[in-house]
Amino acid sequence: MMKKFEEKTIHTEQIFNGKVVNLQVDEVRLPNGKTSKRELIKHPGAVAVIPITKDNKIVFVEQYRKPLEKSLIEIPAGKLEPGEKPEKTALRELEEETGYRSNQLDFVSSFYTSPGFADELMYIFITKEIEKVKDPLSPDEDEFVEIIELTLDEAIEYVQQQRIHDAKTNYAILYLEMLERM
Amino acid sequence: MMKKFEEKTIHTEQIFNGKVVNLQVDEVRLPNGKTSKRELIKHPGAVAVIPITKDNKIVFVEQYRKPLEKSLIEIPAGKLEPGEKPEKTALRELEEETGYRSNQLDFVSSFYTSPGFADELMYIFITKEIEKVKDPLSPDEDEFVEIIELTLDEAIEYVQQQRIHDAKTNYAILYLEMLERM
Repeated sequence: MMKKFEEKTIHTEQIFNGKVVNLQVDEVRLPNGKTSKRELIKHPGAVAVIPITKDNKIVFVEQYRKPLEKSLIEIPAGKLEPGEKPEKTALRELEEETGYRSNQLDFVSSFYTSPGFADELMYIFITKEIEKVKDPLSPDEDEFVEIIELTLDEAIEYVQQQRIHDAKTNYAILYLEMLERM
Repeated sequence: MMKKFEEKTIHTEQIFNGKVVNLQVDEVRLPNGKTSKRELIKHPGAVAVIPITKDNKIVFVEQYRKPLEKSLIEIPAGKLEPGEKPEKTALRELEEETGYRSNQLDFVSSFYTSPGFADELMYIFITKEIEKVKDPLSPDEDEFVEIIELTLDEAIEYVQQQRIHDAKTNYAILYLEMLERM
């Protein structure tokens, strides 16, 4: 069932092997017997966490997103390391980016961010038990972030202003709105 | 404000120019004066539409997603053509992929699918005024899709089974759940 309209690989051309993504072009056999090409981005997958403070604020990070040439306000997130469990990545990225530590996570959802051309799978967790630590893990050397704590109403305003404007964070805010109505 | 922690481009290397994506590697100046590299996927942007039938079913398409080597059930979607308005793309893709035509769209949301490495912006619309047409536009030559109409409860089950498992469609279903509770 999950192989419906399968496109079998005839030939794979490796174009690029990077730190974050690999790019390959596959020649495929279509269901009607014809051939076509598929441009495929390989990505290790990613994890994001919705951190909620004791006074019910959501912790975001603002960072520059080079592909967009602007900064966005997002929930903390990061790439999966090879073999690493998503929960571990989530707790590490939370601490590195925000200085908050947690030992508890609930799974919210997972989704492919852009299945037409990339295999990136995003996991989203939520934690309501976070503590500021004195000596947190450091962010990556080339990572510059600022912490922003917002109420849900403020976050919804930021969505309207498109300062919050990415899939995982928009999803997180819709999820929190949903929880409020339940 | 939206340029916080700006990373200025020192040098751009074009790696690949494809039909769907371009890939470049930028050398950038970080806020601390050091340099780093950014792998950037350029994408024309995309549009998706949530089509609701008169008897309140959601129209999905199942298609093979080569990057994942499996098929997914998604709301109809497609790439923006250069200079094309998202509303026009939405109506065209709806008709090509499902055989339904509509003249009415409401904007739901837009989001960057994966702002860490790609500039793809996804627009989501909803339409509740759709009509099956006898002679619909044809799908792209290399596109094979099957139409699936589901109630919201059935769609939620498919999310749990991960047969629905991509950002735009998961977002759409959460949005419809939200509407139901309002």
